[in-house]
Order: sequence, then structure tokens, then C-alpha cells
Amino acid sequence: MRNSRTSEVPPSESAAAGESTRGPRRRDVLVGAAGIGIGAAAMFAGGAAVQSVSGPATFGNETATSAANHQWRIHPEPPAHAVFIAVDLDQSVDRARLESLLRILTDDANRLMAGYAPVGDQEPQLAETPAGLTITLGFGPRLVDLVNPRAKPEWLAPLPAFKIDQLQDAWSGGDLLVHVASDDRLTLAHAQRTMLKDLRAYTTVRWQQDGFRNSRGTLKPGTTQRNLFGQVDGTVNPAPGSADFDELVWIGANGTTGVGGASPDWLAGGTSFVLRRIQMNLETWDLVDTPGRDAAIGRRIDTGAPLTGSHEHDEPDFEALTPQGFTVINPVSHMRRARSEDPTERIHRLTYNYDLPVAGVGGMGASVSDSGLIFGSLQANPLTQFVPIQQRLSDADLLNEWTVPIGSAVFAIPPAASGGGFIGDSLYAA
Amino acid sequence: MRNSRTSEVPPSESAAAGESTRGPRRRDVLVGAAGIGIGAAAMFAGGAAVQSVSGPATFGNETATSAANHQWRIHPEPPAHAVFIAVDLDQSVDRARLESLLRILTDDANRLMAGYAPVGDQEPQLAETPAGLTITLGFGPRLVDLVNPRAKPEWLAPLPAFKIDQLQDAWSGGDLLVHVASDDRLTLAHAQRTMLKDLRAYTTVRWQQDGFRNSRGTLKPGTTQRNLFGQVDGTVNPAPGSADFDELVWIGANGTTGVGGASPDWLAGGTSFVLRRIQMNLETWDLVDTPGRDAAIGRRIDTGAPLTGSHEHDEPDFEALTPQGFTVINPVSHMRRARSEDPTERIHRLTYNYDLPVAGVGGMGASVSDSGLIFGSLQANPLTQFVPIQQRLSDADLLNEWTVPIGSAVFAIPPAASGGGFIGDSLYAA
Ligand code: HEM
Ligand code: HEM
Repeated sequence: MRNSRTSEVPPSESAAAGESTRGPRRRDVLVGAAGIGIGAAAMFAGGAAVQSVSGPATFGNETATSAANHQWRIHPEPPAHAVFIAVDLDQSVDRARLESLLRILTDDANRLMAGYAPVGDQEPQLAETPAGLTITLGFGPRLVDLVNPRAKPEWLAPLPAFKIDQLQDAWSGGDLLVHVASDDRLTLAHAQRTMLKDLRAYTTVRWQQDGFRNSRGTLKPGTTQRNLFGQVDGTVNPAPGSADFDELVWIGANGTTGVGGASPDWLAGGTSFVLRRIQMNLETWDLVDTPGRDAAIGRRIDTGAPLTGSHEHDEPDFEALTPQGFTVINPVSHMRRARSEDPTERIHRLTYNYDLPVAGVGGMGASVSDSGLIFGSLQANPLTQFVPIQQRLSDADLLNEWTVPIGSAVFAIPPAASGGGFIGDSLYAA
Repeated sequence: MRNSRTSEVPPSESAAAGESTRGPRRRDVLVGAAGIGIGAAAMFAGGAAVQSVSGPATFGNETATSAANHQWRIHPEPPAHAVFIAVDLDQSVDRARLESLLRILTDDANRLMAGYAPVGDQEPQLAETPAGLTITLGFGPRLVDLVNPRAKPEWLAPLPAFKIDQLQDAWSGGDLLVHVASDDRLTLAHAQRTMLKDLRAYTTVRWQQDGFRNSRGTLKPGTTQRNLFGQVDGTVNPAPGSADFDELVWIGANGTTGVGGASPDWLAGGTSFVLRRIQMNLETWDLVDTPGRDAAIGRRIDTGAPLTGSHEHDEPDFEALTPQGFTVINPVSHMRRARSEDPTERIHRLTYNYDLPVAGVGGMGASVSDSGLIFGSLQANPLTQFVPIQQRLSDADLLNEWTVPIGSAVFAIPPAASGGGFIGDSLYAA
């Protein structure tokens, strides 16, 4: 369903928009056609059929990972702009009202991703260029408890405390995650506002994190982006389409996984998402020389190649020794510590940079930015995949000298909605 | 000089970068080759000659307006991301120290725009993809007073008060403007940090405004962007290359202008920049129906066509009457009020959107965003061009119901530096 190349046009629905052109331009239908896991045909049943044309080269639909019913559309090259919003459910929201909210969110997300304005949208033109728009919903522990406490996976809870953590409430937790991403920052602003308007009668915003990556078109295709430390970041990352990606990321039929630790049935086709906000101290990092930078990761800062190789994608040799008898790749380098012998102990990283203005900066030692990573991790089971990695990094990792986790949250990512259903319907049925 | 297709490679200068690849990729040399108005050859005198190759289609060098010595590189399609930073000079900064600062800023801006890392840059790889990077310096009244009080143009002062203004100090004034723009948000973050590091020993940050427009590649070329009200915004805007653009925007030889009110000599080839931060109330705007939206501007919200025409670029007919005898285009519509009979009373608008997260949003009436325009205006003389327009809009403009100016600043934009010189050298020589 997800990569369906046909879709149907919704009737003009918003009286307020009057005579304005409601349909999206054809190229955009294609770009956003996949929908939030509901086939576009099911979504807009009853309209006239439209034949999609080829999308623009820059904003492709390179999503395909499998034909299964996944909500999260994982791109090998994620959109350049993203926002992660966590809201808390108001006291007044019971199981039934939550269902109404989830139906509205599902419907609006589907329309926006397909390049259509939601019903009653007063700026429908801002919906016409999705530019790779994806909208994803995630459930926090309290939300699942409200619907069906017995259906809560054991991993849906705050992570264990790590000694490196300096977590702030303002960046942690949350009942419901809304993640919006697009290659166009204006499209993102409009989609985000649409979702926030849906949410405001039911929830209160807990936090909102804006992030960016290199723009589409800046880097040569296939080039790995860099982060604000200047590091090539994302080299070793199981990608959609690779051999064991599905097993690492998606929860299987009946909630089984190939990575240990079953999940409840209703999450079949779903996944889990861990979001860490990690401050990066650019000031002290700037004082480190090139050998120090290389050593911290175990890779060259300039090319991203492992210190034992010469190209970014060369296999590192963790046994190789210097003439002095030390390992070339420091055993407490970030790469060494992040890597496990156990092939199931891997995650799909999805990272964005943040860089906020700092008011009143002045003086020689002043920090001129508030920067870091919005570090997202997708995996079938956080406890068997994410936690052991994070634990090792917390115990020892050279990079810790310049980085501090200041936010943390875990969400269950439900599968796609069934035809005519809504995101979370399998939880209601569980 | 500005569109020179040859440039020269600087020697590897930062010892700290060790063996890392210092040179930019060739395509990027082209993209940023113009420099801050200094020909690249003059800038990097002494290096080996390099033949530039054609740049990528998406990030062109469509800047050409004239062969004159302008600093501000005005693009018909400005980069998607921009930051405007205003700093105040520390008490300790005298005329001589200011010159040192301006030399450093000029040098670093030139290098960054050409795709080279500044001397001592610890993340040189982040400089390699300028993606249309432009860096522009502007001078506030206090800075000019410090160097040469007799050389201050009469217009370099806060604008007269307008009754619609609700200006906040936190968004107004400033001694020195640093404007950075790029199609890549990561490139922008790095360039901005470089400039802020240069500034911190001399200045204190007064304000910093982050803005965005549609991404390059989202809109079909030649399509006008929309703002957060969903309006087509930028239709009538003198463009580089058009008949009277040079006269409207650039200060001529000896400070003469074709728009009234001479400027001092040292600004020949320069211009003036007015920056207004204008809050847009999306909540109340959402309550307005389509006819109300059309009337507010005098143009259709869906297509941007004048209410008397059918295509965006049709000439409006301000005399056309409805069957009831009213003018079709409301005399207090924004377009009608913004337009003058006097052809010299025009400006070049350069606008970016802002959309900041709002913490703790909840409840039916809650405003879910803090949004608006970062409204920039380039003109040879603010007093004869910008002020009368703003005055008319302040006196009466339907749009005022949903917009509030909350910040205001005026800067003199010096011409390009002379070969071997620095931005502002003509002020020192005046
Ligand atoms: C600000 C914080 C962080 C920075 C700057 C950072 C940076 C990097 C860099 C430069 C690499 C090497 C290139 C690559 O393969 O992508 C890397 C690899 C990796 N990082 Fe991080 N990282 C951070 C936090 C984390 C966290 C919190 C985790 C998980 C808990 C993590 C897990 C990994 C993994 C699994 C790899 C691949 C290791 C391998 O080669 O097998 N990183 N990271
Ligand atoms: C949030 C504030 C503003 C919004 C949303 C806005 C929006 C618009 C729109 C939609 C148009 C019509 C399309 C076009 O020609 O671009 C327009 C035209 C124009 N605006 Fe604004 N504008 C704002 C503030 C201002 C300000 C502060 C000025 C100058 C003081 C200004 C000067 C103009 C001019 C000169 C035109 C062209 C008029 C003509 O057709 O000759 N605008 N604006």
C-alpha cells in the first residue's frame, strides 16, 4: 500500500477556502502519496482517480523497506528539517476522547502527507508542496495505560538512569509524540501548526525540539552528513533495505522480534523510538587538536575513515597495533564502545542537529551557541538494543568529555492504521 | 569582479587541521566565488590559479546586477535560511580595535563564501559546501560615529515612530549587523559560529533572528514564495537586473542617488537596510474567510492575482468598480497603500519567515505559534523610500489587524572592500 502509485482526489471540502485551488499539484501527489500507512485509495475513497506522474529527482520516495504495515516512513536520507513535539494528555481526556483525537490526527497527517489541506485548513496552499513530508505518532506510557494498561510493553518506560545523564524535565518524557519532517521548512511550519491545533483541546505541549540536517541537494547523493563537531555522522547505520534491517527495527507478527524480548501483539509492524537530547560543547571541542578528534571516535575527522583504514566505509580493525603496542583504535573511542559483538544489538540512528541562539553573548570565553544532537534511535526493543549501547557509552566513551544528555524519552510507534482506521486502533482492539 | 569565474587557492593555513583536506570541492569554489565584493583573485593573491567548473543547477550564482562594487549579493531567489545578528560594540573598542575586527570579519566572510575554512577553523569541513552562502555586514549609527561622525548619513538613525509599532528593545537597534544566509542550515550554523567567535572579544550580542523561506527545489523556478498567512509574498518587487533596480537600491558615485537625498561619498556602491520584525497573528487570521483575506491585500489568496485580474503578474486596476460602485481593490488594502505614484518611492523587499516554539501550549484558544516576518528592505535612502510607505501603512492598512511590528533597526551597508582592504575601509578614509 505504501508506495502506491495511484491516489484519488478528495472532494473540495472546506467551504471557507471558497474558490481557491484545493488540489495539490500533480508532482506533489506523488511525493507524499504513501500516507501514514493507509493506502491513499482507502483514504480518499469516493473521489476521481488520478494518475500520478514521476516526482522530482530531489524529493524522492526512497522509503520502501518492505510491504508490511509500518507507520514510520524511514528514509535512507531523512528530510532536512524535523520537529519532535511531546504533549501531555489533559486530565479530561478519557479513552473515548483520546480515540477522537487519534482519528483527527491520523486523518490530518494523511491528508498533509498526500499534499492535501486538512478539512477547514485556512492556508490550504501551504499544504501543496509536501517536499517529502512525513508525520509520525508515538505513544508514551501514560497514553497506553489510559487505553489498555495490560497492553503496555515492558520497555515503554523511562530509560534506566545513566551516570552521564543530566536530564531536564523540560526535555524529557511525554504522553504522545508528534514528529514532523520535511525538506521544506515552510511546509513543516504549516503541518506542525495543523497538528498543534488538533492537539490543543486535548493536550498541553511538554517540549518541542527543532532540528536540521544538510539540505537535500547540498551533499552529493550517498555522502554522509556531518554534525556540528564536524564529524561524519551516520556511517555505520543499518539502512532500510539492508539484510537485517527489518528484524532490527520492526516488531514482527504477534509481537515477536529477532532481537530478544517480545512485545504485545498490537505493535506488530510498529517499532520503538528513543529520543535523547545531547548537548555538544563546541567551545571545549574547539580546543582539541586533530589527533585528539580522531581518537575520540576512532575515525578520522576529515574523511570519516576508521583509523585503521583509508575510506569511510572500510571495516575498522580493532586489533591493529601501533609500533608502541597500543591498539590504533582506542578501546574507549566512541566507535569501539558503541559497537557490540552481538549482531542483534544494533539500532537505526536518526539524528538532527540543533543550534539555538544565545542571548547577550560577549567576552572572550563566552559560549556563542547552544548546540547539540537530537539523537533518535529506532529499534524493535530498546532494552535489548539501545540500553546496552548507551550503558557502555555511559561507562566509558572519550566523547563524553564534550557531550551531555539533557533530555530523554521513549515512545511506542504503532503500526500503520488499518483501512478506515486510525493510528493506535490495534491498541484499542488489543 | 563579482562574478569572476577564476579564483585562487589559499595555502593551507591552519596547523591545527593537520592533514585534513583543506581545499573546497571544485563545485563549491564556483558557488561561493564572488566573495564579499572583493574579487577572489585579489583576496587570495599569491596562490595557484584554479579553473572553476560549472556549479550545480540548484545553487546558482544568479546574482549579477552590475559590475559595480557592491557588498550585498542580492539574489532574485534568496537562500532558504538566514540569520540576522546585531551586536553592540564594547566600551573598550576604539577606532583602531574596530578596524582589526572589521578586517577579521571581512577576511573570514570572504573565505567562508569561497568555500574555504577561515584560519584556525577547527571544523574546516563544514565550510566546504557554501550552498549559496552570503555574509553581509551593516553599520549602525554608533559604529559610524566612532569612526567618523561627520560621515554619518542623516538616515542612519532609528526610524520615526509609527502608531502601529510595539517595538521591543530586544529586537531593535544595534551597532553592527552580521547577516548570514545559505541554502544549507548546517553551513549557516557553522558560518554564524565563526562570525560570532570573531565578534565576542569586541561586542555583545543584542539580538539574533533566524528565518526561513521555501527551500531551493521545493517551488518551481520562478514561482513566488508564500508567507505563513498563506499569501503569495514578493510579486511586486524590483529585481536585480530590472530597469531601475540599480537606481532604487545602490548609492551612486559620490553618494548621489536617483531617489532624492544624497548620502556621504564613502557609501558609493553601498545601500541601506531596514529590518522590521513583524508578528503575524495566525490565530485571528485563521478566523478570516476567503473574501476577507483577498480584500486585505487586494489580491486573491489562492493565486496572488490582483482582484481585478486573473494572473499573479497582471497589473492591478485600482479604478475598476464593483456593480455597487465601490472600487474592486479596497483603497485601504495592503497593496493599494504600499504602492506609490512616485516611481522612486520603491524598495527591494527581502523577507524571511520566523516560527518559534511556544512552551506549554494547551487549551482551546491557545496560540500555538510565535510567528511572523523578518521584513528586510533594501533601498538607496530609507527616508525617501521606506519611510513614506511605512507611514502610509501605519496610517491605514487592513493588514494591520493581524500584524504588529515588534522590532526595528536601520543599517548602512558599506560597499565592497577595495582590493586588500576591509568592509568599511571607505568610511575610515572618508
Ligand atoms: C552528541 C552525541 C553523539 C555524537 C556526536 C556521536 C557521533 C558519532 C560518530 C561521529 C560516529 C562514527 C560514524 C558513524 O558510524 O556514524 C558514531 C557512531 C555510532 N554511534 Fe554515536 N554519537 C553520539 C551519541 C551516540 C549515542 C547516544 C548512541 C547510542 C546510545 C550512539 C551510537 C552510535 C553507534 C551505534 C555508532 C556506530 C558504531 C559502529 O561503528 O558500529 N551514538 N557516533
Ligand atoms: C507581516 C507584514 C506584511 C505582510 C504579511 C505583507 C504581505 C504582502 C503581500 C501578500 C503583498 C502582495 C504581493 C506582493 O506584491 O508581494 C505585499 C506587497 C507589498 N508590501 Fe507587504 N507585507 C507586510 C509588510 C510590509 C511592510 C512593513 C512594507 C513596507 C513598509 C510592505 C511593503 C509592500 C510593498 C511595497 C508591496 C508591493 C505593493 C505593490 O504592488 O506595489 N509590506 N505585502
